[in-house]
Amino acid sequence: MGQLRVGMVGHAFMGAAHSQAWRTVNHAFDLPLSARMSVVAGRDDQRAATAAAKLGWESHATDWRDVVARDDIDLIDICTPGDTHAEIAIAALAAGKHVLCEKPLANTVAEARDMAAAAAAAQSRGIRSMCAFNYRRVPAVELMRRLVAAGRIGTVRHIRAVYLQDWIVDPEFPLVWRLRKDVAGSGALGDIGAHIVDLTQFITGTHITAVTALTETFVRERPLLNGSKTSGEVTVDDAALFLARLDGGAVATYEATRFATGRKNGLRVELNGSLGSVAFDFERMNELEFYDGALPSTEQGFSRILVTEPDHPYLSAWWPPGHPIGYEHSFTHEVRDLIAAIAAGEDPAPSFADALQVQLVLDAVERSAASAAWVQVEPQLAAAV
Amino acid sequence: MGQLRVGMVGHAFMGAAHSQAWRTVNHAFDLPLSARMSVVAGRDDQRAATAAAKLGWESHATDWRDVVARDDIDLIDICTPGDTHAEIAIAALAAGKHVLCEKPLANTVAEARDMAAAAAAAQSRGIRSMCAFNYRRVPAVELMRRLVAAGRIGTVRHIRAVYLQDWIVDPEFPLVWRLRKDVAGSGALGDIGAHIVDLTQFITGTHITAVTALTETFVRERPLLNGSKTSGEVTVDDAALFLARLDGGAVATYEATRFATGRKNGLRVELNGSLGSVAFDFERMNELEFYDGALPSTEQGFSRILVTEPDHPYLSAWWPPGHPIGYEHSFTHEVRDLIAAIAAGEDPAPSFADALQVQLVLDAVERSAASAAWVQVEPQLAAAV
Amino acid sequence: MGQLRVGMVGHAFMGAAHSQAWRTVNHAFDLPLSARMSVVAGRDDQRAATAAAKLGWESHATDWRDVVARDDIDLIDICTPGDTHAEIAIAALAAGKHVLCEKPLANTVAEARDMAAAAAAAQSRGIRSMCAFNYRRVPAVELMRRLVAAGRIGTVRHIRAVYLQDWIVDPEFPLVWRLRKDVAGSGALGDIGAHIVDLTQFITGTHITAVTALTETFVRERPLLNGSKTSGEVTVDDAALFLARLDGGAVATYEATRFATGRKNGLRVELNGSLGSVAFDFERMNELEFYDGALPSTEQGFSRILVTEPDHPYLSAWWPPGHPIGYEHSFTHEVRDLIAAIAAGEDPAPSFADALQVQLVLDAVERSAASAAWVQVEPQLAAAV
Amino acid sequence: MGQLRVGMVGHAFMGAAHSQAWRTVNHAFDLPLSARMSVVAGRDDQRAATAAAKLGWESHATDWRDVVARDDIDLIDICTPGDTHAEIAIAALAAGKHVLCEKPLANTVAEARDMAAAAAAAQSRGIRSMCAFNYRRVPAVELMRRLVAAGRIGTVRHIRAVYLQDWIVDPEFPLVWRLRKDVAGSGALGDIGAHIVDLTQFITGTHITAVTALTETFVRERPLLNGSKTSGEVTVDDAALFLARLDGGAVATYEATRFATGRKNGLRVELNGSLGSVAFDFERMNELEFYDGALPSTEQGFSRILVTEPDHPYLSAWWPPGHPIGYEHSFTHEVRDLIAAIAAGEDPAPSFADALQVQLVLDAVERSAASAAWVQVEPQLAAAV
Repeated sequence: MGQLRVGMVGHAFMGAAHSQAWRTVNHAFDLPLSARMSVVAGRDDQRAATAAAKLGWESHATDWRDVVARDDIDLIDICTPGDTHAEIAIAALAAGKHVLCEKPLANTVAEARDMAAAAAAAQSRGIRSMCAFNYRRVPAVELMRRLVAAGRIGTVRHIRAVYLQDWIVDPEFPLVWRLRKDVAGSGALGDIGAHIVDLTQFITGTHITAVTALTETFVRERPLLNGSKTSGEVTVDDAALFLARLDGGAVATYEATRFATGRKNGLRVELNGSLGSVAFDFERMNELEFYDGALPSTEQGFSRILVTEPDHPYLSAWWPPGHPIGYEHSFTHEVRDLIAAIAAGEDPAPSFADALQVQLVLDAVERSAASAAWVQVEPQLAAAV
Repeated sequence: MGQLRVGMVGHAFMGAAHSQAWRTVNHAFDLPLSARMSVVAGRDDQRAATAAAKLGWESHATDWRDVVARDDIDLIDICTPGDTHAEIAIAALAAGKHVLCEKPLANTVAEARDMAAAAAAAQSRGIRSMCAFNYRRVPAVELMRRLVAAGRIGTVRHIRAVYLQDWIVDPEFPLVWRLRKDVAGSGALGDIGAHIVDLTQFITGTHITAVTALTETFVRERPLLNGSKTSGEVTVDDAALFLARLDGGAVATYEATRFATGRKNGLRVELNGSLGSVAFDFERMNELEFYDGALPSTEQGFSRILVTEPDHPYLSAWWPPGHPIGYEHSFTHEVRDLIAAIAAGEDPAPSFADALQVQLVLDAVERSAASAAWVQVEPQLAAAV
Repeated sequence: MGQLRVGMVGHAFMGAAHSQAWRTVNHAFDLPLSARMSVVAGRDDQRAATAAAKLGWESHATDWRDVVARDDIDLIDICTPGDTHAEIAIAALAAGKHVLCEKPLANTVAEARDMAAAAAAAQSRGIRSMCAFNYRRVPAVELMRRLVAAGRIGTVRHIRAVYLQDWIVDPEFPLVWRLRKDVAGSGALGDIGAHIVDLTQFITGTHITAVTALTETFVRERPLLNGSKTSGEVTVDDAALFLARLDGGAVATYEATRFATGRKNGLRVELNGSLGSVAFDFERMNELEFYDGALPSTEQGFSRILVTEPDHPYLSAWWPPGHPIGYEHSFTHEVRDLIAAIAAGEDPAPSFADALQVQLVLDAVERSAASAAWVQVEPQLAAAV
Repeated sequence: MGQLRVGMVGHAFMGAAHSQAWRTVNHAFDLPLSARMSVVAGRDDQRAATAAAKLGWESHATDWRDVVARDDIDLIDICTPGDTHAEIAIAALAAGKHVLCEKPLANTVAEARDMAAAAAAAQSRGIRSMCAFNYRRVPAVELMRRLVAAGRIGTVRHIRAVYLQDWIVDPEFPLVWRLRKDVAGSGALGDIGAHIVDLTQFITGTHITAVTALTETFVRERPLLNGSKTSGEVTVDDAALFLARLDGGAVATYEATRFATGRKNGLRVELNGSLGSVAFDFERMNELEFYDGALPSTEQGFSRILVTEPDHPYLSAWWPPGHPIGYEHSFTHEVRDLIAAIAAGEDPAPSFADALQVQLVLDAVERSAASAAWVQVEPQLAAAV
C-alpha cells in the first residue's frame, strides 16, 4: 500500500484534532493510501518537539519552509492562524504538495483569491487542495445534505443558522490571538460564522447573494495574555448577525457569537422547505431532525434520527447501532475523503474556490456591517471557479 | 336541546376539575344534550356553598342522599375519596341516575364487584355508568391507541409505564387523607398506579394476567394535619413497583411513586412492538413519540408528533394548529364522550367492569407485595362483565 | 360582588378564545368584579346568534355601535380584524367604556397613534384600555420576565426570537382575509411578528431602536375563498426577518413566517445575558429553560423548569404540581389582570401606548424592507406616552 | 518512559474498541507508562493477521497461550466471548500478567469465583486485574457518581435502569453466538443487563440484595449463520426484567432487552433521592440531567449539563468546551485509569471481585426467573472480597 507522507504546520487545538484524525484514519477505513505522520512544524523547537511526541509525529521542524522543501513529504496540513495560510499554502502548492488548509481560508479576500488561483494552477499538475470545513463530515450533516439533494424537503424557503459559544463572556478573559484582527482576520465571524456559511451553502447547494449585517464587540478592552496590568484593545467582532438572500430563493438569518452564555458550541442549522424540514444541533451531533410533510397528516412530526446506523454516512467504519461518535470523527472523515480523492486522482471538496466563496460572503458581511447597508456578495473571478 | 342535569358529590381537586369540564363542554363541542350544573354536595354547608359559587353550580347540598333522591337530577358525578364510592354509586344507580365515578372505582375488590354488578343491572334499564380514567381522553393517548389498534407497531412486546410524583418527599408533609388506608384504600398504587394500569390495558387492548410486586413506605410517621405535635402513621404505600405479563404476550414494568424528586406528574408509557414503538410523557401531554419501523432505514427515528392538529382526536373543537391544551381538557373530553353516549343510548367506556378489572390488578399487586410471590390477576365474575 | 358587563365585537378565533377566558376567569380566580358576558356583536345576524349560544353570551347584536351605545355595558372587547380596531376602540373609549383590543393595535401607525391618544384621554376619566398581547400571560413568560428583571441573567446581550408557523405552505390554501393587506395590514409581520416584538421588549424592559429587514411573499397568487377558479393576489408578507438593536445594548434577530414547514405555532425566545440565559418555546409552553452562570461550573446547564407549581405565576389558581395548562389560559390570565386593574382603579398593561410602540417597530420593519436600509424606530408622541 | 506491553486476545467488536483505546491513550493523556500494542491473538491465522494490520498491533498469534507465555508481555487484554474468560484470565494471572477482562466476567458464578480468587492471589504479587465495565468511564456517569457521593441527591430511594436495544427484532436475524447459551452464558441479561447492574451499584455505592425477575425469549427459532435453511434454537433470553432491593434502602426496576424497537443502545439510569435526582441516557452520552432540590422552588428543574467542559471528568484531555466525545472514549478512559493504577502500584476498579458481585446478581435474576420467586443475591466468599 502506498503512503501519503504528511507534514503538519501548527500544533495547537487544530493540530491536535488533525493529528487524531491522521493517527486513526487507516485503522477505521480501508483506503488505498496509508497516512504517514512524518513531521510537525512549530516555531518553538522545544514545544514542537513535545507536540511531535504527544501527537504522534515522527519528527519536528521549526520552519515550515523546511517542511515544504522536503522531497519526502506529499501533503502539507496547515493548522496555523489565518494570517499565515496564504503564504504557506501557495508555497506548498508551488512545491507540488497537496494541501489541506484550515478554515477560514485566509484573512482577506485578496489572499483567498491568490490561494484559489494557486490551487487551480496546481490542479492542472495533479496537485489537490482542500479547505478543512470539518462539520461537512459530521454524518448527520451529510445525511441532511442527501435528504435536501433528494428533494425530500422540496424548495428551501428558510435557513436559520446560528453558531453560539460563550467562552469570552467573562470580561477578564485575556486578549488571545483570536481577538486580534491582525492575526485572526475577524472574530466570531471568521472563526465560527464561516462554518455556518459553508454548511448552509453545502447542504442546500445554493449560495448567498446579498446580506445585511451588524457586528458588535461587547467587551472592548481585555487583560493582556502576559499577565501585565495593562489591557489591550479587542479588534474583532464578538458577534456577527446577518440576514441573507440565496440564489435558490431562500431567505436566511445567520448569527455567530461568543457571548451566548450557556451555549458552548451550539452550531444549529434548520431548513424549512416546501415539502419538509431538517434541523441539526451540534450539541447533539449524532442526531438529525427530519420533518416529512409527505407522511399522513396525523403522523407528521420532527423525527429524531439517531445517525448511528451502519447505513448512515461514514458509520459503517465505527461501532454497532446506537453508539455515538464525537467531534474528532469529523476530522477523521475529512482526511478519509481527502486520502480517497488523492488516491483516485480527483479533487476533494470543499475546494479553495469553495472556501473563497465563503470568504466573499464574510467580506460582504463586514462591508455591510461597516456601511449599514445591504451588500451584494462579489463574484469569484472566472479563474478561481 | 335536552338537558343533562348533573349533581356532583365532592368539591376538592377532582370536583374542581370536573366542574371546569361541565362548564366548558357544550361551548367546545356540539352535543345533543346540554349539561346543567344543578347541585354540588359537600358535608360542610358553608364550604359547599362557597364551592357552588366558585365552581359554578346552581345550588348546594350537605347530604349526597338528598341529591340522589331529587327527581330533577339525571346524573351523579362522584368526586369523593374512594371509601365512599360504592355506597354513593350503588344508591345513584338504584335511583335511576347515570353515574360518573372517579377512579379508583373503589377501595376494595369486593366493593368494586358490587359496583360493577349494580352498573350491569342498571344498564338493562338504560342507565349508564363510567369510571373517570381521564387520561384516556388526552388526545395523544387516544392517538397512541389508534396507532396500536391499526397495527402500526405490530405485536406489543414491551410495556414500560411509570407514574412519578414527588409531593411527599419532604418528611414534614402532613398526614393527609391520601396517606391513610382507611380512606384512600392504598397510596401511590391506587391513586396513580391505577392510571397506568388502565392506560396500558386501554392502549394495547390486552390485560395483565400476573404480577410480581414490591411496595415501600419510605416515611412511616408524619405530622398530623391539625398542626399538633403528635405524628401519625402512614398506612399506605409511598411507592409500588411491579413486573407483569399480559395476555397479548407482552412483558411489562410498572412503577408508581410519590418519591421521584423532580418528577411532578410524570406519567409515561412506552410500548415497543415488532414493527414500531410509541411513547408518551404527560409532562409534554401535547406530544406523542412514534417510531415507525416501516420507514426507510436511514430515516427511522422517534417522531415528535405535536398532537395539536384539527384532525387529531378531540382537537377540532379547540384552537388552530400548534396551540397546546392542558390537563383539564382531558376531563372536558371525558364528559363530552359521556354525554354523547347517554344521548345515543350507548354505554360509555371505561365501564365499571373495566374499572373492576383494574381493581383486580391492583389487588394482585398488593397480594404479591405482601406474599413476595407472583400472583395471578383474579377473573371478573361473569355477572360483572 | 360588582359586575363587569362585557360586550364583545367579533366571534371568530379570537372571539372564541376570549369567550373561554370570560367564562372561566371568575371560577379560577378570586376577583372583586364578576365578568358578565352580556352581548356579542357580529355583522351577520344568524351567525352572531349562533356564536352567542355556542360561546355563552347572553345576547347578540349586528352592529358594534349599538353595543357601544348601551348603558349596561362596561367594557368593549375588540376581536375583529385590524382595520376596524381604531374606529371601534375610539368610539368605545369616547362612550366611557373600558377597552380590551386584540393585537396588532391597528393596521397603521396613524391609527395606532389616534388610539393611544384616545386611551390617554380616557385614562384621565378613569377609563382603562389594554392591548391583548396574550403571550405575556403565559406563566413561563412571566417567570422569564421576573428572572431578567431580578438581574439573574445580567445585562442582556442577545435576543433570538422567532415565530414559526406553516399553515399556508400549500399553494392551494385560499386567499383568506389574513392574506389581504387592506384588511390585515400586514402578513406574518403584524399577525405573529407583533407578538415577538412585544414579548422581547416586555421581558427585557428595553426597546428596539433600529432595524434592518427583509420581507418575502413566496406564493403570490392563491385561489379565492369562494371556490371560483379565479385566483387573487396575496398582498402581505409570508415572512418577515429583521435584525435589531435595542436601547439596552442588546442585538437581536427576529423572524416571523408562515412557511416554516412542521413548525405549527413555534414562538421561541432566547435571551443571553452576561450572567445567564433564558429560553422559551411555546410548543412546550409549560416549560422554561434557565441557565444560571452563578452555579458551580461543573453543574451549569439549561434547566428545564416545569412552570406548573403553585408558586409560579398564575398557577395557584389551577391544578396540583405538574399539571400542564394550555393556550387558552393565557387569555384567562389576561382578563384576570384586566379585571383586577379595573377594580383597583389602575392601568393594565400593555397599554395602547405600549402597543403603539410595537406598531412603530412593525412600521420600521416595513420601511426597512421597502428601502433595503437600516431604519430608526420613530418615537411616540409625548401625548401618547 | 516505561512501556506497558499489551497482548490482546480476540479482535471482533470489543477488540476493535480496545485497540482504538490503546492506540489513543498516550496521545490524549500524560501517563507514566506508554502502552505498546505488541500482539493480538485470534484463532484464524489470516484473520488475526488482517486484524493486527487494521487495528495497529505489531504482531499476531493464533493461540492465546503463546501470548500468555511470552516474557515481553505485561498485560493480557481479554476481548473474547464469556465462555473463555476464566481460562485465559487465570492463566494470565498465574503467568504474572496484569489482566483487563471484558464483561461479563464469566458465564457462570463458579467461573467468576475462580477468577476473583485468582485475582486476589495475584494481587499479593503486585499483579493487577480489572473488569471492563467501560460505561463507568463515560464522563457524565462519573459526574453522576460524584454528585451522588457528595450527597447532592440525598438518600437514594429509586433506581430506574434500562438498557434497550433492537438489533434482533427481525425474526430473520440469524443465530449468532450471542444467542447461544453455551458461548454467551445468557442473552440480554449478561450482555447489557450486566452494565446497568454494575453502573447503578457503582454510582450509588450500594448493592442489590434481592430480586424478582422474569425473562422472555420472543423468537425461539432463528436461521443458522451459515445460510442453510435449517434453523436453530435461541437458548438465551431476549429480555430480562427485574425488581430489586438495595442495601441502601432503594427500590429499583431493571430492564434489559434486544426487542425495544427504535432504541438502539438506550442505556438509561435515573436515580431519585431525598434531595434531588440525576438521570443519564447513553443516546445523549455527553449530557447529564441533574435536579437539585436545594435551589429556590420556582427555579428547580432538571438541568441538562453538557459534560464537555475542561473541569468535567476526563475532559481536560480532549477538546474545547462543548465538543462532544463518543462511545470509544469510554475505553480510552478505561485504559487510562488502568495504566495509571498499574504505574502507581494500586488496584484499578472495577476489580474481579466487583465483577463477581455483578455476576451474583445476574445469577439471582436467572434463578428468580426460573423459580418465579424472590431470590437473595448470594454473598461473595470472604476470599474473593
